[in-house]
Amino acid sequence: MRTALKEAETAGQAGEIPVGAVLVHVPSGSIAASAGNLCEKDNDPTNHAEMLVIRKVCKDTGRQRLTDYDLYVTLEPCPMCAAAISHARIRRLYFGAYDPKSGGVDHGPRIYQHRTCHHRPEVYGGIMESESVSLLKMFFADLRAR
Amino acid sequence: MRTALKEAETAGQAGEIPVGAVLVHVPSGSIAASAGNLCEKDNDPTNHAEMLVIRKVCKDTGRQRLTDYDLYVTLEPCPMCAAAISHARIRRLYFGAYDPKSGGVDHGPRIYQHRTCHHRPEVYGGIMESESVSLLKMFFADLRAR
Repeated sequence: MRTALKEAETAGQAGEIPVGAVLVHVPSGSIAASAGNLCEKDNDPTNHAEMLVIRKVCKDTGRQRLTDYDLYVTLEPCPMCAAAISHARIRRLYFGAYDPKSGGVDHGPRIYQHRTCHHRPEVYGGIMESESVSLLKMFFADLRAR
Repeated sequence: MRTALKEAETAGQAGEIPVGAVLVHVPSGSIAASAGNLCEKDNDPTNHAEMLVIRKVCKDTGRQRLTDYDLYVTLEPCPMCAAAISHARIRRLYFGAYDPKSGGVDHGPRIYQHRTCHHRPEVYGGIMESESVSLLKMFFADLRAR
């Protein structure tokens, strides 16, 4: 989660919403990919940090199903990312800040709580929550002050 | 929708689930992008037809918000794609077959029916439904017969 926070910080410095994600290969304990949001840089509203690491590891491994990977992300995933995590069969989801406004795991459509959801990761929210919240608060305070 | 069906057919012939999508630029009436699923070819579970056309047009136009575009897709979008359509601020969504097993618009998490959904496209389902259903049925019958 520290690496994800660093990615979030870097993203924020580049004018992106400061969210970072890391995919860890569980058997080896190594980081397979890390990224921050790239929506602004790439003009792509689907380039959330979670999507970027999932796409990278699928490409690198030639596999669509990342059953032995855990995802660490600094913010509760939105519905798009929550569903992508399910599509990719990720084992565990650890996230930092809860997102009552736009989250899709513990808020809004609660993606994993429907019988049409074909894979539910184990979910652990609030991991290093205060650090993630601080980054987001500072970013939006700066934005409003401009 | 005819172009989307052609894309679906081509995708099916390549071993992908036969789903096709088209983004139309409303003011000009022209097709801005069309694609079929590419999950198998690219080993990427996020490469649904809808995601591919959204990402392409955002890249081509340098815009994240496609407010003057309509999306045609042969199957009810999954929750990931439904949320991406919302992120991209697409004006209207026309889809073919309903998808009670994996859809995210009229089934499952019903992405647009939560107050945390920041943009709801106008939705028209069942457009050329029987053609879309036929393609899907033939594909899965072939798969089971192998």
